[in-house]
Amino acid sequence: MGGAPVVLRLEPRGLAYHSPYDQTMLKALAPLAGSGALLAALLSTTSAAPAVDPVDEGMWLFTNPPAKELAERYGFEMTPEWLEHVQKSAVRVSTGGSGSIVSDQGLVMTNHHVASDVIEKLSTAESNLLENGFHAVGLEDELVCPDVHVDVLWTIEDVTAKVNAAADGLGTAEAGAAKRKALTEIEDAAKAETGLHAEVVTLYQGGQYHLYQYKRFEDIRLVFAPEKSIAFYGGDNDNFEYPRFCLDVTFLRIYEDGKPFVPEHHLTWSQDGVSDGELAFVAGHPGRTQRLNTASHLEYLRDTSVPDSMTSLMRSEVMLQIFSGKSAEHRRRAEGMLFGVQNSRKVYVGRQSGLLDPAIFEAKRAEEARLRAAVDANPEWKAAYGDAWDQIAQAQDAAREIREPYIAVGASTVSLGGQMGSIAATIVRLADELPKPSAERLREFGDAGLPALYQGLYSPAPIYQDFEIMQLESALMAMAERLGADHELVVAALAGKSPRARAEECILGSKLMDIDERKRLAEGGADALKDCGDPLIALVQSLDAPARALRIRYENEVRSVENEAYGKIAAARFAVFGDGVYPDATFTLRLSYGAISGYTQGDETIPPFTEFGGVFKKASEREGEEWYDLPESWTKAAETMDMSTPFNFVSTHDIIGGNSGSPVIDAEGEVVGLIFDGNIQSLIGNYAYSDAEARSVSVDSRGIMGSLEQVYGAKRIAAELRGSKD
Amino acid sequence: MGGAPVVLRLEPRGLAYHSPYDQTMLKALAPLAGSGALLAALLSTTSAAPAVDPVDEGMWLFTNPPAKELAERYGFEMTPEWLEHVQKSAVRVSTGGSGSIVSDQGLVMTNHHVASDVIEKLSTAESNLLENGFHAVGLEDELVCPDVHVDVLWTIEDVTAKVNAAADGLGTAEAGAAKRKALTEIEDAAKAETGLHAEVVTLYQGGQYHLYQYKRFEDIRLVFAPEKSIAFYGGDNDNFEYPRFCLDVTFLRIYEDGKPFVPEHHLTWSQDGVSDGELAFVAGHPGRTQRLNTASHLEYLRDTSVPDSMTSLMRSEVMLQIFSGKSAEHRRRAEGMLFGVQNSRKVYVGRQSGLLDPAIFEAKRAEEARLRAAVDANPEWKAAYGDAWDQIAQAQDAAREIREPYIAVGASTVSLGGQMGSIAATIVRLADELPKPSAERLREFGDAGLPALYQGLYSPAPIYQDFEIMQLESALMAMAERLGADHELVVAALAGKSPRARAEECILGSKLMDIDERKRLAEGGADALKDCGDPLIALVQSLDAPARALRIRYENEVRSVENEAYGKIAAARFAVFGDGVYPDATFTLRLSYGAISGYTQGDETIPPFTEFGGVFKKASEREGEEWYDLPESWTKAAETMDMSTPFNFVSTHDIIGGNSGSPVIDAEGEVVGLIFDGNIQSLIGNYAYSDAEARSVSVDSRGIMGSLEQVYGAKRIAAELRGSKD
Repeated sequence: MGGAPVVLRLEPRGLAYHSPYDQTMLKALAPLAGSGALLAALLSTTSAAPAVDPVDEGMWLFTNPPAKELAERYGFEMTPEWLEHVQKSAVRVSTGGSGSIVSDQGLVMTNHHVASDVIEKLSTAESNLLENGFHAVGLEDELVCPDVHVDVLWTIEDVTAKVNAAADGLGTAEAGAAKRKALTEIEDAAKAETGLHAEVVTLYQGGQYHLYQYKRFEDIRLVFAPEKSIAFYGGDNDNFEYPRFCLDVTFLRIYEDGKPFVPEHHLTWSQDGVSDGELAFVAGHPGRTQRLNTASHLEYLRDTSVPDSMTSLMRSEVMLQIFSGKSAEHRRRAEGMLFGVQNSRKVYVGRQSGLLDPAIFEAKRAEEARLRAAVDANPEWKAAYGDAWDQIAQAQDAAREIREPYIAVGASTVSLGGQMGSIAATIVRLADELPKPSAERLREFGDAGLPALYQGLYSPAPIYQDFEIMQLESALMAMAERLGADHELVVAALAGKSPRARAEECILGSKLMDIDERKRLAEGGADALKDCGDPLIALVQSLDAPARALRIRYENEVRSVENEAYGKIAAARFAVFGDGVYPDATFTLRLSYGAISGYTQGDETIPPFTEFGGVFKKASEREGEEWYDLPESWTKAAETMDMSTPFNFVSTHDIIGGNSGSPVIDAEGEVVGLIFDGNIQSLIGNYAYSDAEARSVSVDSRGIMGSLEQVYGAKRIAAELRGSKD
Repeated sequence: MGGAPVVLRLEPRGLAYHSPYDQTMLKALAPLAGSGALLAALLSTTSAAPAVDPVDEGMWLFTNPPAKELAERYGFEMTPEWLEHVQKSAVRVSTGGSGSIVSDQGLVMTNHHVASDVIEKLSTAESNLLENGFHAVGLEDELVCPDVHVDVLWTIEDVTAKVNAAADGLGTAEAGAAKRKALTEIEDAAKAETGLHAEVVTLYQGGQYHLYQYKRFEDIRLVFAPEKSIAFYGGDNDNFEYPRFCLDVTFLRIYEDGKPFVPEHHLTWSQDGVSDGELAFVAGHPGRTQRLNTASHLEYLRDTSVPDSMTSLMRSEVMLQIFSGKSAEHRRRAEGMLFGVQNSRKVYVGRQSGLLDPAIFEAKRAEEARLRAAVDANPEWKAAYGDAWDQIAQAQDAAREIREPYIAVGASTVSLGGQMGSIAATIVRLADELPKPSAERLREFGDAGLPALYQGLYSPAPIYQDFEIMQLESALMAMAERLGADHELVVAALAGKSPRARAEECILGSKLMDIDERKRLAEGGADALKDCGDPLIALVQSLDAPARALRIRYENEVRSVENEAYGKIAAARFAVFGDGVYPDATFTLRLSYGAISGYTQGDETIPPFTEFGGVFKKASEREGEEWYDLPESWTKAAETMDMSTPFNFVSTHDIIGGNSGSPVIDAEGEVVGLIFDGNIQSLIGNYAYSDAEARSVSVDSRGIMGSLEQVYGAKRIAAELRGSKD
C-alpha cells in the first residue's frame, strides 16, 4: 500500500498477524485501535441474539481473566495454576502468529500458514517444500529455520504509573514523545536486569501500560509440514468460508544449545477430542481490534483508510498474478506474498462491508451517545473526559491531511516494496539512530528490539531480483499516483527515469543481495554509507528526511492526540461500566472462551464438525479446478483411512488475525484443536463481536493425529504427542 | 471504475473498442482527445530514430489519404478507385471492432475477441461455444447472432460550416450545447433523406465535423470460430506480447432478406501472403487517441484519470476472479467480462508507464512550447488561438473538481454495474427524453441512434442474477468509497441497507429480466414507471436527477471548453504545419500504411513471423500451465500439419484499440493478414506514435487458411475464400 502496493502484507493468510515494526504501514492505515469493552449491545440491533443475552465475548488479559463469566455461564472454576500452565505453554511466533508447546521435547504446534514464510525460505526451485510438504523421519532430519523466533510470555508487570509520570504536566505532543521514550527506557532496563526480551504493551490505547517479558528462542527447526494443497485446501476461494477441510498445521521444534528444549510447561494431547456444545479455551495472540474506536475514527476508516487499503491490496494482487503468470518459477517466488495479499484483501473487503452496513454504524453511534451522556451527566467526569471525542475527531482530520504523502513515502519508514528496499531503509536509519542513546532513538531501534532487527537484516533467505524490480516499479508508480508525478518527492525518486528503468537501475546496481555488504554498511554507519555508491541506498536517502518529518508530524498530530484522548475514554469507560472490560487486541497473549457450535446462515444449518470423508467428496465435486486437487499422499491413503475422523470444527471463540496457530484447549487443559481461521461473518470482529453467525475455525486434534498416522506414517511425531500425555 | 468498478469494459480484449454511447465512462475518464498530427518529433528524444526520419505514422482519413508519403516512401500510387474499394469492403462491428467483407456471399472476417461477446451469448452451460469453438458445416448451420450489427461506410460529407453556424456568437457553454443539438439535427435529416445510418464525427476535437453515412446490417450469423484456447493462446499472460501464436479469427456472414448478402465490394484472399519488409495497409476503426492533448490535459490523465481507471480495473479484475472461483459455471458467466477487464488493465498500465516516463513528458512539453511560440510570434494567430492552452488547463481544473461525484453516479448516465442496471437506466431516461423533439434530447437518444439503443435494450442475451448482484454490490461500495458513506447520494442509494442486502433486494425484486416487461416500461413511459414498483428502477430514479445535473455541469465546464479550445489549437496547427495532419482516432474508418518488420527489444532481435510449429513448441515448454494447453483439434492434427505455415506477424502500422479485426491488405488490395493486437511497446500510441519497438500484431492469412484446411477441415469456408479470388 502507499508507496509500495505490492509488498504490503497487512496480514498473512488466515489469522496470522505481522508485528508492528514489520508492519509500520498497518499503523499508518488505521492509526490507533480503540479501547475494548463488552460490545454485545452494539450488535443487538442486527444480530439474532437479544442485547441481554450473554455472549462468549472477549480477548481477556491473563492478569484480568473472565473468572466470573466462566463460573456463571459454564460453572468453570479458573485457578492461578491453570492460568500459569496455559500461559507458559503458549508461544508467539515471529512470523505473526500463535502456537503452543505440545511435548516435553519442545515440539511446537502452529499453523502451516504461520510457518509458510519459513517453509518458503527453505524451498528452492528444485525442492519445493510448500508444494510437497516435509516430514523429518528422525530428529537429525529436522531443518534449521531462518529468520524466525518464538516467544513465551514469562512475567507481566503494570508500569502505568511510571509511564504516565514521564509525561506529567506536558502538552499533548510532548507528552506523547516523553511516553514513547519512557517505554524504551523501561524495556532496556528490564532486559538488562533479567536478560528476557521486554516489551511495554499499551493497553486500552493509552489507559494502561504493562511490561511483558518473554523467553525468546531463536533456534527453531522444521519437523513436519503437510502439502500446501491440503493445508490450504480450497485456497483463496474457501478462505474464511465454512465448512472447511484444511490440515493447516505445522510442527516446529525449539532447540537450546543444539538440543531439543525441555520446557517447564507444555500442553498434553487430548485422547477423545471435543464435542458439540463443549466449553473450550483459546490462548493466543490476537493482533489488533478497533472495537472502541469513536464514530469519527470509524468514519475515517470507512471513508478513507479501509477502502484505500482494500484497493491497494487488489492492485498488489493483480501485479503479483501478472508476475506469477510468467512461469512456474515466477509463481513459486511470488506465491507466499500472493496468499498473504489475497487473505488481507478478503479481510479488508469483509471489514468494509461491515462498516458500510448502516445498521451497524448507527448502533455504534448510539452506543457512543450513551457513554457520552453518562460522562456529561457527571461534572467531574465531564471535566476530565468530556473533550476526548472531539480530540479524536481532530486527530482524524490531521490524519486525512497528512495521509497521501505519509503513505506515499511508506509511513513510518521509507518503504519501496520488496526485501531489498526494506534492507536499505533499515541500514540508512541505523546509521542515524545507533549513535544516539537507546531511549532517544526511534522506538524500533531501541536496544531491546535490536536483536530481532538484525536477524531480519542479515537473513540468508533468498532474494530474487526480477521480483524486487517488479515491486519497486509498482511502489514508484503508486507514489506518483498519490502525489502526482511533478511532486518533488516523485521527481527525486524517479531521477529522470521511468519507474521501470529506475527500478532496474536501483535493484541491479545494488550490492545488498550480499549479506556481508549489508553487515559492512550496517556496522560502518554513516561513514560507510557516504562512499558506498549503492543506488538503492541513495534512493532511500533521497526520501528519508521527508519521511522522518512526516512521521514526526503524524506522531505529534495524530498518535499523541489519540493516545491522550483514548486514555480518557478508557478511564470514562471504567468509571461508567466498571473494570469488567478487556482491552483491544495488541498481539499479546489473551484468553478467549467459548463453545463448539454450528450456526445458521440464511436458511442453511451448518453443523460444527467436518470429517475426512468430506474432503474426498468435495475433491470429486470440483475435479480439475485450481485449489481442489488433493495431494497424492491423501488419494493413496484413501482406502485405509477412517473417513469419519473429525477434521475441522467451528466455535464461538472471540479471535482475530494473530490468533492463527492458537491451541484450542478443553477444561482439563488438553489440546483439542488448532485455530486457523474465522468465517467471513467474523471479519466484522475488528469492530465488534457477534456470535450470531461469526465463528472461529479450527483443525480438530483428532484430524491432526489421524492424518499423521493414517496419511503420513509420521510415527515419531504421533508417539511424541501421545507420549507427552502422561 | 467509478460507480461501477466491476462492469466497466473500457476496451475489450486486444484492440476492440466500445462505441461512445456504450462507454460513456470512457469519455468521462479522459474527457477529450486532442487533435492529431505528425508526432515523430515528439518521440525523437527517446526513440532510436532521429526526428527527421520518416515513420509509418498516421491514422488517415479516406478523404485526406497519405498519397504524398506513400509515393515518396514506397513508390505506391493511390487511386480513388482503390480507396473506394477498400472503404466499401471494410466494416465496423457494433461490439467495438473492425472487420472486412471477404467473399461475394457477404462473409465477414473479424477477430475472435471482437465476436466473443456474441459467441458467449450463443453459449449455455451445456454448449460452450467459446470453449469448444463453432463450425457451420452448411449454410443452414449458421447461427443468428443476437445484439450485433455491422456498418459499411458509404458516404462522407464535410458539415463543419453548418455546425459552426449554429454556435455563431454564443458563449462557450451555449455554443457547445448548440453544436450538440446541430449534430442531432443533421443526423436526423440525413437519415430521413437517405435511410442510411448517419453519424456526425467530430474531428480534430472540434476542428472539423464530417457526416458519415453507413449501410447498416442487422442480420448477422456466426459461421466459424476456433476454440478460445487457440484464439487467445497464452491468455492474459501473452496479451500485448510478441512472438505470438493466436488464431484470433471469427467468420460471420451478413444476411439480407434471409439470404447471404451479395456485396458491391469485397476483398479477395491473397494466394501468396506477405513477406518481410513488404508494404501493406490497414483499413479499420481505431477507437481513440489523445496525441494532441495539451500538457495540462496529459497531467490530468497522468495524475488523476489514468491511475484511477487502472486501479478501478484492478478492483474489477479481483472481484471477477473471486466470482469465477466459485464454480466452473460462475467462471463461464464472468469470463468474457474478465478478459475485457484484464485487457483494459494492461492497456492502462501501459499508458501510465508511458505517461510516467519523464523523457516522454518533457518532449511533449517542449513540442507544445514550440507550437505556442509560433502562435505567439504571429499577432493574428495569437489573438485567435493564444488563450486555448489556458482554457484547456481550466477545463482540467473543472474536471478534477467534479470528478468524484460524476464518476460515482456513473458519469453521463446512472451506472450501477451489470446489464440490469444499464437497462433500468436506459428505461428511466427514455421516459424523460422521448417526449422531446429529437434534437432537444440527450445526444444518445436522438432518432438516428434509437434503433441500436432498442436492439441493446430488448436483447435476449442471458442475464444471471448472482452475477448482477455481485456487480451492483461492488458499484454501491465504490460509490460509498468515492463520496463517503454519509453523502446524501450514498444514503439514498443504500436506503438503510448494506451494499450486499441492497443489491439483493434490487436485483431479486426487479422484473427487468423479462424482455416483455422492459418493452412495457419503455413504451409506457412515465406513466408506466410511476406504478411499476420495480426496486431497481426506483434506485436509478433516486440518482437520476443529480446524475443529469452533473452531466450538464461536465458538458458546460469541461467538454464545451475543450471543444472550443481544441478547435483553436487544431486551427493553429493547420496554420503552423499545413494540412498534412491526421485527426486523433474517433472509431471511424482510417487508413494506416506500413511494412512487415521485426524489431529489437533490449538485446533480443524479434523476427516478424511465427509459424505453426512454434505453438507446439511453446505448449510443450509450458505444459500444465493455464492458457498454454492446445485444443484437441490442434493436437490431433499435429502429425499432418505443415509446421512451417506462417501464423502471426508484426508490422509498423499505426493502430490502436478499435482496429481489432482490421484486414491487412497488400498493394493489390488482397487480404494478407488480420490485425488482432499491438505489442506492449505500442500502448504509448495513445499519446504518440513510435516505430522504434512498437508493432501491430496480425494473424497471417496463410495461418488462417492453413488452420481452416489442416485443422478444422472447413472446406466450405476455405473454398469460399479462395473462390472469392477471381
